[in-house]
Amino acid sequence: MQATVGSRDRPHILRVMSPLAVPGEGISHEELQLATRNRGMPLEALRYDVTPVGMHYLLVHFDIPAVDPVAWRLRVDGKVSEPLELTLDEIRRRPSRTIPVTLECAGNGRARLEPRPMSQPWLVEAIGTAEWTGTSLAGILDDAGIAADTTEIVFTGADHGVEAHVEQDYQRSLPLSEARRDEVMLVYGMNGRPLEPQHGFPLRLIVPGWYGMASVKWLNRIEAITDRFHGYQQAGAYRYQQSEDDPGLPVTRIRVRALMVPPGIPDFLTRRRIVDAGSVTIVGRAWCGEAPVERVEVGVDGEWSDARLERPLGDWAWSAWSLAWEATPGERVVTCRATDAHGNTQPTEQPWNLQGMGNNLVQEVSVTVR
Amino acid sequence: MQATVGSRDRPHILRVMSPLAVPGEGISHEELQLATRNRGMPLEALRYDVTPVGMHYLLVHFDIPAVDPVAWRLRVDGKVSEPLELTLDEIRRRPSRTIPVTLECAGNGRARLEPRPMSQPWLVEAIGTAEWTGTSLAGILDDAGIAADTTEIVFTGADHGVEAHVEQDYQRSLPLSEARRDEVMLVYGMNGRPLEPQHGFPLRLIVPGWYGMASVKWLNRIEAITDRFHGYQQAGAYRYQQSEDDPGLPVTRIRVRALMVPPGIPDFLTRRRIVDAGSVTIVGRAWCGEAPVERVEVGVDGEWSDARLERPLGDWAWSAWSLAWEATPGERVVTCRATDAHGNTQPTEQPWNLQGMGNNLVQEVSVTVR
Repeated sequence: MQATVGSRDRPHILRVMSPLAVPGEGISHEELQLATRNRGMPLEALRYDVTPVGMHYLLVHFDIPAVDPVAWRLRVDGKVSEPLELTLDEIRRRPSRTIPVTLECAGNGRARLEPRPMSQPWLVEAIGTAEWTGTSLAGILDDAGIAADTTEIVFTGADHGVEAHVEQDYQRSLPLSEARRDEVMLVYGMNGRPLEPQHGFPLRLIVPGWYGMASVKWLNRIEAITDRFHGYQQAGAYRYQQSEDDPGLPVTRIRVRALMVPPGIPDFLTRRRIVDAGSVTIVGRAWCGEAPVERVEVGVDGEWSDARLERPLGDWAWSAWSLAWEATPGERVVTCRATDAHGNTQPTEQPWNLQGMGNNLVQEVSVTVR
Repeated sequence: MQATVGSRDRPHILRVMSPLAVPGEGISHEELQLATRNRGMPLEALRYDVTPVGMHYLLVHFDIPAVDPVAWRLRVDGKVSEPLELTLDEIRRRPSRTIPVTLECAGNGRARLEPRPMSQPWLVEAIGTAEWTGTSLAGILDDAGIAADTTEIVFTGADHGVEAHVEQDYQRSLPLSEARRDEVMLVYGMNGRPLEPQHGFPLRLIVPGWYGMASVKWLNRIEAITDRFHGYQQAGAYRYQQSEDDPGLPVTRIRVRALMVPPGIPDFLTRRRIVDAGSVTIVGRAWCGEAPVERVEVGVDGEWSDARLERPLGDWAWSAWSLAWEATPGERVVTCRATDAHGNTQPTEQPWNLQGMGNNLVQEVSVTVR
């Protein structure tokens, strides 16, 4: 496997480093290094409408940068008539709004694939919902006067490192039509407080409905371009590929998913659940970036029942759901799956892809009812 | 391997479930489940005197409990003349203080042992320093009038589950002399805000100087006893054992350790560091629960130099240190080690123990200087 350096001048398919684990191979030291610095949301936190800051999932490609908010500026340039250089105070003085948004890492579920793509080894917990406070991206694009033939907007973060032999700032682009969506925001607040450093202080992008890679943290530059962006995180990573030679399709919106709070009490090491026989309320959340969630079902040993689905917390945030279960003694497997308004539902067998992206295999929880 | 149920009436050695990995075996699914719900502090966060809440390490044995702060009470009973039942408001009205404390998980470094004890697979990042706000435990013990022959104080948290076949609330005890230390506190604030749920809301114990297992989260009961506490987390877990048959010694205070911010920039997957040749300042923190840190050394390819050590952030919190390094091109291994006022220093070869406790093997960072 190889990787080549991509540039805007020399666009081509970037080959991503995607070593695969040998089937049955345990998690490697390299994957463990990622797992101990990134973090999932413990699933019992599905009980909260809004995830406490310290429990929200976090995926950082390089290092969390130290940004001096006084010296920091947001540059808005490229194909614009009025290049801008904004201070944090200037951004905070713009019209603001707060909206709840559910984010999920595009690699969530990767460690359940076989063969397993070697990267951050998520099981199912790379999720979270926060109330983000900031200002409209469209308003800033308007003020900068982007050119009529602008095709994409490129976002650059301050985190810097090497991935697949390419030294880079973390960069992603959005098609102009996506960047102009009313709910796409530049945010400086999370759950009513300033962003913590690991979530993008002083400013990050939030792209509701898209997997988390689009919501660039530690944002310091916004550039209007009239061609296509071919940076590593766009042309190499975050693609649905079947092989190294497959250019694949870009990862964009969040696929439909439901997760439950594992019922009962856990065993420390195995995380197996123990439930007392009788009435048990199974609760969880469901979300989708493509269309509203229309249905959630809960399966017990393969028998599916419809859960009661609540209204979503917001247009771009998850919905609570619940189901009353009469638990009878024995070994049970409890599952859940959501279906969106387009009729897409979660698979019970996971289609594989090289980078382990967009997995929404149904969650399975092993339960001993006593 | 087996585990037996312990009780205060039938004290005996509890056998802890400590499966060991086969040498060279990758991290198991069970260990990964723990690694994705618990979290370390990304080492670049060593730059902060006080760790942002969402970056502080976290180890939860069972589930993070949902505690209703209105219904919640702290019971203080056992061998006392005046049993207490305190509301959160009553505790908040008591004399308060705020102190910085460095906490470290007793299992930090476990995944670097061979054979590897199977539990939360920490590398080196199970650390953090917070400013904790609360009230003195000694004051509450005085108000409850503990009996003259009290030997230990038992602390019970609300998290509940099964470990090594023993169903339990998380419980730990302290010898009375430790519980009475001036700096042992019941805290309701962390970094100037109410505790987040995962750090023990509404109230937790903080035992400065001891590994984190002593600082019971979600505290709801304090009991004075006149014998020894034999609960699972005291008599089974958190012991320095060489074998299942070895009763071992209890884990108590934090052993001396230094960690550095990995210099330069990372490679995403391998976390290998890349540094430009020239002057590089290596920075980090050092701490010890047994005695003050007296010396920090930095090793480059086995050549040790003394770092400049700053005053500690507080009596129970870490000290910053730094060293100027003239980096020359090549593959380098950078290490650091601290020594305390008792002359204890960090090993370069790790003594092994069955549960993977109290490891303070020197940190090694592989660096490519270009």
